[in-house]
Amino acid sequence: MKKSKSNSPKDVSSWYTNIVNKAGLADYGPVKGTMVIKPYGFQIWDNIKNIFDKMIKSTGHVNAYFPLFIPKSFLAKEAKHVDGFAKECAVVTHTKLKTNSNKELIVDPDSKLEEEIIVRPTSETIIWSMYKKWIQSYRDLPVLINQWANVVRWEMRTRLFLRTSEFLWQEGHTAHATAEEAEKETLDILELYRKLLEDFLAIPVFTGVKSDSEKFAGADKTYCIEAMMKDKKALQAGTSHNLGQNFAKAFNVKFQNKDNKEEFVWATSWGISTRLIGAVILTHGDSKGLKIPPKIAPIQLVVVPIFKNNTQKKKIKTFLKPITLKLENLGIRLKQDWTDSSPGYKFNEWELKGVPLRAEVGPRDVEKNSIILARRDTGEKVSILEKNIESSVKTLLQKIQKNLFKQAKDFRDKNTHDTSDYRQLKKTIDKGGFVRCGWDGDVDTEMKIKDETKATIRCILQNQNPLNLKCIYTGKPAKFKVIFAKAY
Amino acid sequence: MKKSKSNSPKDVSSWYTNIVNKAGLADYGPVKGTMVIKPYGFQIWDNIKNIFDKMIKSTGHVNAYFPLFIPKSFLAKEAKHVDGFAKECAVVTHTKLKTNSNKELIVDPDSKLEEEIIVRPTSETIIWSMYKKWIQSYRDLPVLINQWANVVRWEMRTRLFLRTSEFLWQEGHTAHATAEEAEKETLDILELYRKLLEDFLAIPVFTGVKSDSEKFAGADKTYCIEAMMKDKKALQAGTSHNLGQNFAKAFNVKFQNKDNKEEFVWATSWGISTRLIGAVILTHGDSKGLKIPPKIAPIQLVVVPIFKNNTQKKKIKTFLKPITLKLENLGIRLKQDWTDSSPGYKFNEWELKGVPLRAEVGPRDVEKNSIILARRDTGEKVSILEKNIESSVKTLLQKIQKNLFKQAKDFRDKNTHDTSDYRQLKKTIDKGGFVRCGWDGDVDTEMKIKDETKATIRCILQNQNPLNLKCIYTGKPAKFKVIFAKAY
Repeated sequence: MKKSKSNSPKDVSSWYTNIVNKAGLADYGPVKGTMVIKPYGFQIWDNIKNIFDKMIKSTGHVNAYFPLFIPKSFLAKEAKHVDGFAKECAVVTHTKLKTNSNKELIVDPDSKLEEEIIVRPTSETIIWSMYKKWIQSYRDLPVLINQWANVVRWEMRTRLFLRTSEFLWQEGHTAHATAEEAEKETLDILELYRKLLEDFLAIPVFTGVKSDSEKFAGADKTYCIEAMMKDKKALQAGTSHNLGQNFAKAFNVKFQNKDNKEEFVWATSWGISTRLIGAVILTHGDSKGLKIPPKIAPIQLVVVPIFKNNTQKKKIKTFLKPITLKLENLGIRLKQDWTDSSPGYKFNEWELKGVPLRAEVGPRDVEKNSIILARRDTGEKVSILEKNIESSVKTLLQKIQKNLFKQAKDFRDKNTHDTSDYRQLKKTIDKGGFVRCGWDGDVDTEMKIKDETKATIRCILQNQNPLNLKCIYTGKPAKFKVIFAKAY
Repeated sequence: MKKSKSNSPKDVSSWYTNIVNKAGLADYGPVKGTMVIKPYGFQIWDNIKNIFDKMIKSTGHVNAYFPLFIPKSFLAKEAKHVDGFAKECAVVTHTKLKTNSNKELIVDPDSKLEEEIIVRPTSETIIWSMYKKWIQSYRDLPVLINQWANVVRWEMRTRLFLRTSEFLWQEGHTAHATAEEAEKETLDILELYRKLLEDFLAIPVFTGVKSDSEKFAGADKTYCIEAMMKDKKALQAGTSHNLGQNFAKAFNVKFQNKDNKEEFVWATSWGISTRLIGAVILTHGDSKGLKIPPKIAPIQLVVVPIFKNNTQKKKIKTFLKPITLKLENLGIRLKQDWTDSSPGYKFNEWELKGVPLRAEVGPRDVEKNSIILARRDTGEKVSILEKNIESSVKTLLQKIQKNLFKQAKDFRDKNTHDTSDYRQLKKTIDKGGFVRCGWDGDVDTEMKIKDETKATIRCILQNQNPLNLKCIYTGKPAKFKVIFAKAY
């Protein structure tokens, strides 16, 4: 099979940085590892946010807001939790600045806090300290709260969207009367995440459970969605944790059940973040730039008029007016580009920005009462009569959405290899790809494979029968069917 | 005039705290002065946010996101700015925690930052450090960016919504080619703020300019909207700053104008915050609780069924189903309360929560094919035939919205006194109210009045001719007509 050069950027890392920069998605902030999300990038996040916010509201969740600041002592209450986050915390120690005798601005030593404050890396501890006040009886349950917020994790090696010291996310924190309910919630959310990724972001995902060594610090069980990026590495795109009674015990949150007995509350937490924008770029982009799935695209259709003089310009404007109005009424997110640049320049620019559909209108199109529509995903162009424009745009956007998913899924499936041969695993991991195989469930085996190949277990696949399957490393009977891959 | 006891809570401060607590709006977080916004309170904020977000988008603004963390040195770049914020900063000094030999969690001294980081109290400095990179030519202007974010100002005396160490807000930061454009933007936003407060929050405001002593640290000119609360104190509900070239000079942001000459960029910034929820409570509430204007109410209509047995319950349910469906299709935010509590309990509960309209449906209403609608603002009840329910609910919500504004405006106007007699000013300020009078424009005069009465100039009124007006303190010719009041 011949590979089109334009569709497989060689150096994915610099290609990625280049796109994020040139398409105007984000920029680094002045403090190391922080990120400025520029308007075009932010609009993608806003679209994702609105879609997911509707999903969780329609399943009974509500939004709230908890403080950014967590007392240091809270973090220590859940032993594994603090292990997981202690090494990447922003710590607030003072509350004032002052000018010293050299007229330099310094931290006022008199303003030192008695107890240091942590900038939230995640909010389990602060939220469960509040649930302690709010939950007394089974009547207070379930609590189904979510928040959209910023969090901070001090990272040494950062990459815009994928790993930054501060990022935006949603974090759901629910409280339940039974273990079963908590497990159901964890899985229900996992399914919403799958749906969001596959149906809206056009990114196919494997769903499954993390091995113990990869699970969230403080969880009994971490479910996840894992996607394959262009460079065949895995990206963890969302996690849903069954926290068991760990945080309820740490914060002593009990409720009176229907039999008047006190029990610890059951908990879940789950999150997706601005990392998803990185996933969109790394799944769909090509050497021309971004390809944004229509359902989350800030601009779904860009209209580029082509004219040589003012008479032509005027004619095109008049021709376009009712057409763009119709499309906007249809709910199409549309932009007209009347700037001074050449049509060629504009084509490149909007392809770079990943707008799914481009309309071209020149004097001859006006005469024919038609418009040319060009697809970003395939490059195909069609001439459409004005009267058919609404249905054509709608249909094409749907087709592009589907096609992006199909392309990504074909790529993912082609590069996911079932094998029981460890040499084959090594080879696949080395040249890039996912390996689907048996694992004996032993953490030693997992660590040996990690040491030898840098691949980790991305997820233990759900509903997969490992019967007759052998562990790819030890040859022992496999306990689980898993995906091994290098990951972001 | 006889005052209804129920409409004038005596001790406003404890009344306020009580409502915020009982209506489930907010709670204090574990770190002193921080706030948890509970779901019901957050929904009010979300409604306000959505309304204002539409307003600014329809006027060409876009959203983005800038980092939480600002290098300490940035704050020092604008002299007045640092003076204004240095004393209330959360300072991050370390990035790791560790366990010491006593197994206590301590800040890892090895993780001390070279330059301390400030948690944003406002984002002018960090945003202008980015505009430095983004703006080169007049073609890059205007930049009309807004962000919805959390900010931190270390406060000693806090009150939920009104003054907390962390709060949520929007902050607009625009860049322009001319002074005139910046001034126009500042005023356009002020008008949007007025519209938001008066047309949606039903809060009448005075608009005007701050005196130099009250303006934003770093602004040339601060415009504001000022509202009167129940206790006749003023609340600054939003500010729009013309920053002149101050931040452009501090961060050396120049652009090439059309004549190929370099100029410093002109700036504005403007913000409203979760403080507005406090303003809604303190404007409209009464001794029964909240009154939320319909346009921002999380629940506009609560349906309370009244029944004695299951047969009645079933009948009412069947009767209500098509009615509630119709109303929901109309876009009414509706809740049905089928809990086990008594109707009386439910009435109190939903009045406390300020739901504008209550529907009561008992067996006799079903027989008559009608519903009783009770207004929260007036207590009036009407029986409405089922076929008229949609138009009645719509009309009543509009009436309530208007009436809340009218009541607040009548109260504000009644307690705003025009006078040229300083003794009268003292008396008014002492017993509560606004004084509208002349001021000679001298900061000494302003400070003397502040010292003697605790009242400040809330705003210099716009479009008010001070001709023939004398300064209330010095008797000199007045330069401005102003509002004096004690403030939150």
